[in-house]
Amino acid sequence: MKRPLKQIAELVQARLLGDGDLEITNIASIQSAKPGDIIFVEDEKTLPKALQSQATAVIAGEFATKSENSKPFLISDQPRLAFARAARLLRDEQALEHGTHWTAVVDDTATVGSNVRIEEWVIVKPGVTIGDGTRVAAGCFLGDGVKVGRDCAIYPNVTIYPGTAIGDRVIVHAGAVLGSDGFGYVREHKTGRYEKFPQIGGLEIEDDVEIGANATIDRGALDVTRIGRGTKIDNLVHVGHNVQVGEDVVIAAQTGLSGSAVVENNVVIGGQVGIADHVRVESGAILGAQSGIPSNKVIRGKGVVFWGTPARPIKDYLKELAVLARLAKKEESLTSSKPGSREP
Amino acid sequence: MKRPLKQIAELVQARLLGDGDLEITNIASIQSAKPGDIIFVEDEKTLPKALQSQATAVIAGEFATKSENSKPFLISDQPRLAFARAARLLRDEQALEHGTHWTAVVDDTATVGSNVRIEEWVIVKPGVTIGDGTRVAAGCFLGDGVKVGRDCAIYPNVTIYPGTAIGDRVIVHAGAVLGSDGFGYVREHKTGRYEKFPQIGGLEIEDDVEIGANATIDRGALDVTRIGRGTKIDNLVHVGHNVQVGEDVVIAAQTGLSGSAVVENNVVIGGQVGIADHVRVESGAILGAQSGIPSNKVIRGKGVVFWGTPARPIKDYLKELAVLARLAKKEESLTSSKPGSREP
Amino acid sequence: MKRPLKQIAELVQARLLGDGDLEITNIASIQSAKPGDIIFVEDEKTLPKALQSQATAVIAGEFATKSENSKPFLISDQPRLAFARAARLLRDEQALEHGTHWTAVVDDTATVGSNVRIEEWVIVKPGVTIGDGTRVAAGCFLGDGVKVGRDCAIYPNVTIYPGTAIGDRVIVHAGAVLGSDGFGYVREHKTGRYEKFPQIGGLEIEDDVEIGANATIDRGALDVTRIGRGTKIDNLVHVGHNVQVGEDVVIAAQTGLSGSAVVENNVVIGGQVGIADHVRVESGAILGAQSGIPSNKVIRGKGVVFWGTPARPIKDYLKELAVLARLAKKEESLTSSKPGSREP
Repeated sequence: MKRPLKQIAELVQARLLGDGDLEITNIASIQSAKPGDIIFVEDEKTLPKALQSQATAVIAGEFATKSENSKPFLISDQPRLAFARAARLLRDEQALEHGTHWTAVVDDTATVGSNVRIEEWVIVKPGVTIGDGTRVAAGCFLGDGVKVGRDCAIYPNVTIYPGTAIGDRVIVHAGAVLGSDGFGYVREHKTGRYEKFPQIGGLEIEDDVEIGANATIDRGALDVTRIGRGTKIDNLVHVGHNVQVGEDVVIAAQTGLSGSAVVENNVVIGGQVGIADHVRVESGAILGAQSGIPSNKVIRGKGVVFWGTPARPIKDYLKELAVLARLAKKEESLTSSKPGSREP
Repeated sequence: MKRPLKQIAELVQARLLGDGDLEITNIASIQSAKPGDIIFVEDEKTLPKALQSQATAVIAGEFATKSENSKPFLISDQPRLAFARAARLLRDEQALEHGTHWTAVVDDTATVGSNVRIEEWVIVKPGVTIGDGTRVAAGCFLGDGVKVGRDCAIYPNVTIYPGTAIGDRVIVHAGAVLGSDGFGYVREHKTGRYEKFPQIGGLEIEDDVEIGANATIDRGALDVTRIGRGTKIDNLVHVGHNVQVGEDVVIAAQTGLSGSAVVENNVVIGGQVGIADHVRVESGAILGAQSGIPSNKVIRGKGVVFWGTPARPIKDYLKELAVLARLAKKEESLTSSKPGSREP
Repeated sequence: MKRPLKQIAELVQARLLGDGDLEITNIASIQSAKPGDIIFVEDEKTLPKALQSQATAVIAGEFATKSENSKPFLISDQPRLAFARAARLLRDEQALEHGTHWTAVVDDTATVGSNVRIEEWVIVKPGVTIGDGTRVAAGCFLGDGVKVGRDCAIYPNVTIYPGTAIGDRVIVHAGAVLGSDGFGYVREHKTGRYEKFPQIGGLEIEDDVEIGANATIDRGALDVTRIGRGTKIDNLVHVGHNVQVGEDVVIAAQTGLSGSAVVENNVVIGGQVGIADHVRVESGAILGAQSGIPSNKVIRGKGVVFWGTPARPIKDYLKELAVLARLAKKEESLTSSKPGSREP
């Protein structure tokens, strides 16, 4: 959707420098920008590239006001954010048609809001409720009593087990599985065989959560697994039973949270991190990629980065790596200076 | 299904203390218990909480007989197991209707047992056999000649490649892929290009196995990949071609087993463990989360916990971690005591 | 398909020793070979086993010509490759019937080539093109404008997001998700909430790529994610937005590539490797299983194996492991020789 630059400035709350009547048609990266596009820069050193691009306008920070610019600018203290918001204005989802595809199987007892889109082969079981404006894409399965809020996007081939409750504006990418049984067994002492422990709890996903492709989130065993408001979960992440994830948490791809782990608000978790059962990661901690937290540990430190397995403050970990490298090097030079060694 | 406490006691083989005529309607955790619920405690220190709960009855160990109790008790030497069994009695799966949904495409040459439930959009290819009492949920694909035993539960959107054989009482969670091609290529020396090595072997999954959501298990290259009786596999686990997993093995989420690995009976594998090709993990070993076993290694030691990459006995690994931490600390104090350092 | 041995010799360009008129019906492993089968051996020490097997013929290297052999041989300088090619001759995919299953929903504006097979419940959205000879298996979703080349095999329940472009002879295994949104958010400073950064770039997968079951490959944010010709990607691998993977790269199971990582041609990546954002792995490097490359690093060294987190040349890493083990051992003996210790 085409918009004059000044309108974008107003809507993203940025300060306009230059000709506000120019028409902006799309967003782009600096390297792919064409006339009509708006781009963004976050630091001064990228500015020349932005000016050389074919973009019509640039979103930038205060730094861009220091020099004479050949293009109109929108000045924002969060250029990337302003750009993201401009994107939403310019790329208004082409309104998909509402309605239920004739191939979908929607139970009579389901409650479907207005402006809902239910696509091919979707299965909506008894007692399901779907809020206004939500899209359920092709091949999704919504088990008995599932609740999906307003303005959600459920991408193709998602499986939602019975009883799962999803808030508003939640995005679930293709192939994700929500509410599957947790991994819980009891070993019979005499036979050594595992018997299934009941996995009958619920799964609650709050508003504004996004869940990546092929991620899996298990229901609680007896109680509830919960994903807090605004939390973002990447592809192939695993969340075990009874896990409690707070608000505005970011969990990168392939990370795993074991049973009953607690992750408080504003935690940032890198990719392939392993969080064992009953761990508590306190508010604002940052876990580096591939780090591992053993069972029952508490990770504490707002803004502190942890790394390694077992995870420790990154400065300690780096020091250890450095010491170890030095020792290995020293050893090597000792070995090679021994009489008889090939390279004296 | 409501049952008198004394009947539960009898069926789970526990000793009844107190009023056996009380009606039990459901299981619950201590914190969520309501009147009519039965709960369990495994240790004495949790007992007071259990007694304060609203639960009608408590399953506990012998320790609970020491004091006067305000609730009726079932005494078992495996309270958690007795609870799991009570759960099965009380929560008898509401018998789902049997039959084949009109939208399923079942080939005429398939053999379907009695009391089988085949749900929406299921595809059953030529030569498939499905045993009595099995449920194949919506959107599953059963390729040519697939065999599924009795009383299995195949959750939605599972793909089973041709020829895969599954035993009785197997549970497969949503999105799992069984029998996909292994990862095998041959590099042509001249061109440097990879050509596909044949992946035509089978996949055999024995009785009482459970497989987690979005897990993937590859068929053998020329021979068979096998998952032994009673083994439990968590979400997002990967099992490569020709892998042989024994009986009563537990494999936590996101672990990967590379081609031709052998895991013997009763092994316990934590989450995100990596087992390289041709590894042998001998009976009863325990692999800590995120540990890694390099190619061709043998891991031996019933009840021994291994950790780290490359995996070593946990006591060695912990000692190494301690030594390293101490060295780094010492270094730091040396550095900081140098003249000119800010904090002498 | 039955073939005389001499014909196989000719087609796989191997030297025939022995009776070329023998009929070969199938390929097999040494241990499972039956009369009529052809097998292969790559080293002299496996030769006796091959000769003792029931196989009718053996593919081997020059080493097999040294002794008198009881079976006919095909001599090749790449026996495994010759075997893989023989497999293709002997196991010519039983030509699946072409055509579109009546349950598939194919948009009128889609362009479907000749000899295409579109199976049950497939959804083909507006503007899709599918090349000659391609198979799209049951339950797949091809979003608006998706392009799939010739002779591809898309296995069941694959989701391909709008705009994704796939080359010729590409194989995509069940449950894979191609073109999903990348994991990109901007944090609003005032509220601390994450807003979605646009994920509107493309995904281009070149010829001869194979993608494993339940793997996920994200589209670019503003530009394009690209997987180069001939690259092989195993199950449950994650590829983030804007990643550039070169040609003839091998990526084993459960590895993750974060946003904007670059992997050049001929790189070999083990299982569960983590590659952080903006990493560059240069041509021909080899990354050991579970290794981790921190953000912005460059990995350089054709044929050099890297291991550990952070990844370093394997010889350095092994030396460090050895030093550490020795220090821990020394410490232990010191401790245990202290007066009063239990084991002097």
